Amino acid sequence: MGLFTKDIQTLDDLFVHTLQDIYYAENQITKALPKMIAKATDPELKSGFEAHLTETEGQIARLETVFEMHGQTPKAVTCPAIDGIIKETNEVSGEIGDKTVLDAALIASAQAVEHYEITRYGTLVAWAKQLGRDDCAAVLQQTLDEERATDERLTRLAEGQVNRRAA
Amino acid sequence: MGLFTKDIQTLDDLFVHTLQDIYYAENQITKALPKMIAKATDPELKSGFEAHLTETEGQIARLETVFEMHGQTPKAVTCPAIDGIIKETNEVSGEIGDKTVLDAALIASAQAVEHYEITRYGTLVAWAKQLGRDDCAAVLQQTLDEERATDERLTRLAEGQVNRRAA
Repeated sequence: MGLFTKDIQTLDDLFVHTLQDIYYAENQITKALPKMIAKATDPELKSGFEAHLTETEGQIARLETVFEMHGQTPKAVTCPAIDGIIKETNEVSGEIGDKTVLDAALIASAQAVEHYEITRYGTLVAWAKQLGRDDCAAVLQQTLDEERATDERLTRLAEGQVNRRAA
Repeated sequence: MGLFTKDIQTLDDLFVHTLQDIYYAENQITKALPKMIAKATDPELKSGFEAHLTETEGQIARLETVFEMHGQTPKAVTCPAIDGIIKETNEVSGEIGDKTVLDAALIASAQAVEHYEITRYGTLVAWAKQLGRDDCAAVLQQTLDEERATDERLTRLAEGQVNRRAA
């Protein structure tokens, strides 16, 4: 992006920029998840992260579909927000010795990632509808529903067993 | 924090660390909001940000209460996640020339901030309860409820008027 130009002129430009932002974010998440899988001890948490990695690959394919539907080539722009969230995940988990406490921290980190995705996909769905692209909105809504379901599963896992073991 | 030691040993340590993280985040938000107020054009968005600044100051005071209830001195630890979210807010808004499009982007950025707070306060409430600190959980729950209400207000403002004007 230009330092001396205003590259985003319309809501459509902003929609495409945000697609590029979350496309970058999803790709960074596929790199972060294998490390989280390796660190997790609780079998259900580990298998949940593995399933989410597969789901994330599907969400990337879905984003590529939306780019194409909207006449755009899939492209990523650096997203400092997800970089910060992943940096914090690595820093905090590096400070924890106890495995049960680490599981609790990994769930909290994963939920921070999910909430970033929930807010971005929620915005993208609203903007797509406003731009008359109900077709793109419908595809993005599928991912939004998956992210919300993942967040709820993580809450149940934390409150059902992981936090109790960590305490 | 030590580079060669594991400073977080227990769920209680992790709870305190996360309090310090969100204490830093809330303080950074009070620095970011005046810039967002200055950039906003829609009067309801501008006054909403102003009200949220006052609310954030109350949330900082509430965190200081929780630190004290838990026998801790209020302290902030750098939170790369909120730093990244705020950096992205500044970068994107710097790329936008049109004021109505900028308002739509500011709402999206504010909702990314809210979702970060929702996930952290949600986690803190769950951990406080697990640690037998229902008193701390009750105070943190008040802020969680405020953040959720702010997020819903921003959605209504976006879908009710700001996105339509930006399109």
